[in-house]
Amino acid sequence: MSVPSVAPLDASKLRIELTPSPKDLPDPSTLVFGQTFTDHMLTAKWNIQTGWADPVIQPYGPLALDPSSTVLHYAPTLFEGMKAYVDKQGRTRLFRPDLNMARLNRGAARLAFPTLDGETLTELIKELLRVDQRWIPTAEGCSLYIRPTMIGTRASLGVGPSTEVLLFVILSPVAKYYASGAKPVSLLGSTKDVRAWPKGTGSYKFGLNYGACVQPQLEAAQQGYQQVLWLYGDDDEVTEVGMMNFWGAKRGANGVVELFTPPLGDIILPGVTRDSVLALARAHADPSHPFRLAGLPDELVVSERKVTMPELRDAARDGSLLEVFGTGTAAVVTSVERIGYRDEDVVVPVEGGSTGGFGRIAEAFYDVLQAIQYGDAEHEGWSVLV
Amino acid sequence: MSVPSVAPLDASKLRIELTPSPKDLPDPSTLVFGQTFTDHMLTAKWNIQTGWADPVIQPYGPLALDPSSTVLHYAPTLFEGMKAYVDKQGRTRLFRPDLNMARLNRGAARLAFPTLDGETLTELIKELLRVDQRWIPTAEGCSLYIRPTMIGTRASLGVGPSTEVLLFVILSPVAKYYASGAKPVSLLGSTKDVRAWPKGTGSYKFGLNYGACVQPQLEAAQQGYQQVLWLYGDDDEVTEVGMMNFWGAKRGANGVVELFTPPLGDIILPGVTRDSVLALARAHADPSHPFRLAGLPDELVVSERKVTMPELRDAARDGSLLEVFGTGTAAVVTSVERIGYRDEDVVVPVEGGSTGGFGRIAEAFYDVLQAIQYGDAEHEGWSVLV
Repeated sequence: MSVPSVAPLDASKLRIELTPSPKDLPDPSTLVFGQTFTDHMLTAKWNIQTGWADPVIQPYGPLALDPSSTVLHYAPTLFEGMKAYVDKQGRTRLFRPDLNMARLNRGAARLAFPTLDGETLTELIKELLRVDQRWIPTAEGCSLYIRPTMIGTRASLGVGPSTEVLLFVILSPVAKYYASGAKPVSLLGSTKDVRAWPKGTGSYKFGLNYGACVQPQLEAAQQGYQQVLWLYGDDDEVTEVGMMNFWGAKRGANGVVELFTPPLGDIILPGVTRDSVLALARAHADPSHPFRLAGLPDELVVSERKVTMPELRDAARDGSLLEVFGTGTAAVVTSVERIGYRDEDVVVPVEGGSTGGFGRIAEAFYDVLQAIQYGDAEHEGWSVLV
Repeated sequence: MSVPSVAPLDASKLRIELTPSPKDLPDPSTLVFGQTFTDHMLTAKWNIQTGWADPVIQPYGPLALDPSSTVLHYAPTLFEGMKAYVDKQGRTRLFRPDLNMARLNRGAARLAFPTLDGETLTELIKELLRVDQRWIPTAEGCSLYIRPTMIGTRASLGVGPSTEVLLFVILSPVAKYYASGAKPVSLLGSTKDVRAWPKGTGSYKFGLNYGACVQPQLEAAQQGYQQVLWLYGDDDEVTEVGMMNFWGAKRGANGVVELFTPPLGDIILPGVTRDSVLALARAHADPSHPFRLAGLPDELVVSERKVTMPELRDAARDGSLLEVFGTGTAAVVTSVERIGYRDEDVVVPVEGGSTGGFGRIAEAFYDVLQAIQYGDAEHEGWSVLV
């Protein structure tokens, strides 16, 4: 059940309050992910009696929240991660914002938040991007990270529906994720902590799926691994790579390469990049389809299926494992070179890429996704002009 | 690993800023749980470089949070629930605050928050209670609910340790939970959503365990049930009752009454009231112990063990089920009269109490806990004077 909105979110009622003191633009080479914010933010308040108030673009600044606001106590919060890119013609582009809007609304319903019209919110985000246009870095590989967020602001300690909600969108300029060239990462396969579970909320972009991941991440770092590989169940099923979706590739007994990722369900986040890699891979693998992706083997099997750590370990041992990588909005594609698993290090090949930072398959997806995102290549309307 | 504190939380450095405009006290009969707050709150900031800043008691009011504060995005938040009671001599009392402090610190370590000295925080809470003493309702069964909370306030969208944390304590006067007399509740055994899971965080008082419970609660209400009975696993193991710990009682084949509750572990919150009921029941059941609790059968077996819905359903059918109830700080004890389970209503007896609002066993615990909490009965130092 989703809570009904009385007044809908209305882009035509947008009010814009420009900052009297615009900030200096940062040197893109100094940017750390998610720590620098632009001059403005978008906010829109909702309450159960009157629905959505007029949205406002206003100077970026602190939110005044009652100390009893539910978000601070019971964590009703959901977010999206998107990016704006400037193309060679100087135009601003978004990448598949419809998927972010759909995921946001699916999450809103599960959190008993109001749902909203995704095209309206996209239009409001576009307006915010126009206002803060100068903040979108144009250096190669840079972009403006967009963070739409909804939080429950009802001032009450009773656990119940969020009768008041605040929607806000903030923008953060980000450098090329691999400023000094892509580097493969190491993962610790977690047999101690479980991120998500059947009939739980792991498939939603809820803050509550992230807060408890930090301590396991610190423990992995202490053991010399960069991220956690989240496992599930008695057979150590592979689910996600840190905050990314998991991909593997191996050569089958018949010599054909299989590209595989865990199927969607309660324990997998439906990533926009995951969906895009899947579509690109399937188009490439379909002999009747005109699309071919340079760098992928001519013959390719694409699977959404269960993957376990013992399978990966055995494939690494017998030489059939070709690559492992993660996908997500922040880094796009990240190759994996090593997985700690039950006191053993599973060594994963990272071969065939142009720099050593990616395996050949990971690089193929990275390159084509970047080309589409920056408007250098066209693919079925995924890149949307602002 | 817990993050080291550089400067410890120091009660001797407390600064008190009294409100210039004290509010009128509410009519206790109008109080809704958790919606009215006192004149002051306690706050203390921590950061990873300098540790704890001086704690402050200041007028209750909004917190100014950067929109990128981690608590709003990734839900690093934990809380405690405690109460202050005024005894017949006019003295203020707390109930087992050491358990709340231990649970808070256990949660802080799991969230990569700083831990703190529990006695220091208890001392600061006592000082806040002295400042807002007039707010503690003295009418029978009323109390002042205390909400210590820790939130991650680092202004960054990177998922990582909370290098800045805000501790705050707010106070809310609460009426007797059953203002018009205790009433048994109905539960819907949830086979659709799972609250907590092995190797997860269900045993911590984290906000993230609560946010996703709201929608299932609404769905239960739509089906005519007041709360959700959280089940787990293929055999529909009983875990928690809404936000309370679960208790059941049945008569065994040998005629002896067994009182049972699920064992602590990853999917059960270690409730202070649960621990207290367990200690009281075990003392009563121990023939060598001088304590006897009026209302309980002379011979009693007390078990922490797995309980399943099929067991409860079968016991209801054959007449051996005596009672089901939940325990927690807010309501203390709540009897259950009906459990919806796989399209069937399991009817639970609520018999032998003085009013019909409680079963005999639930009432026995309710009465003795209230007597201890309000200082009318003494039990091993559980009630602590402020």
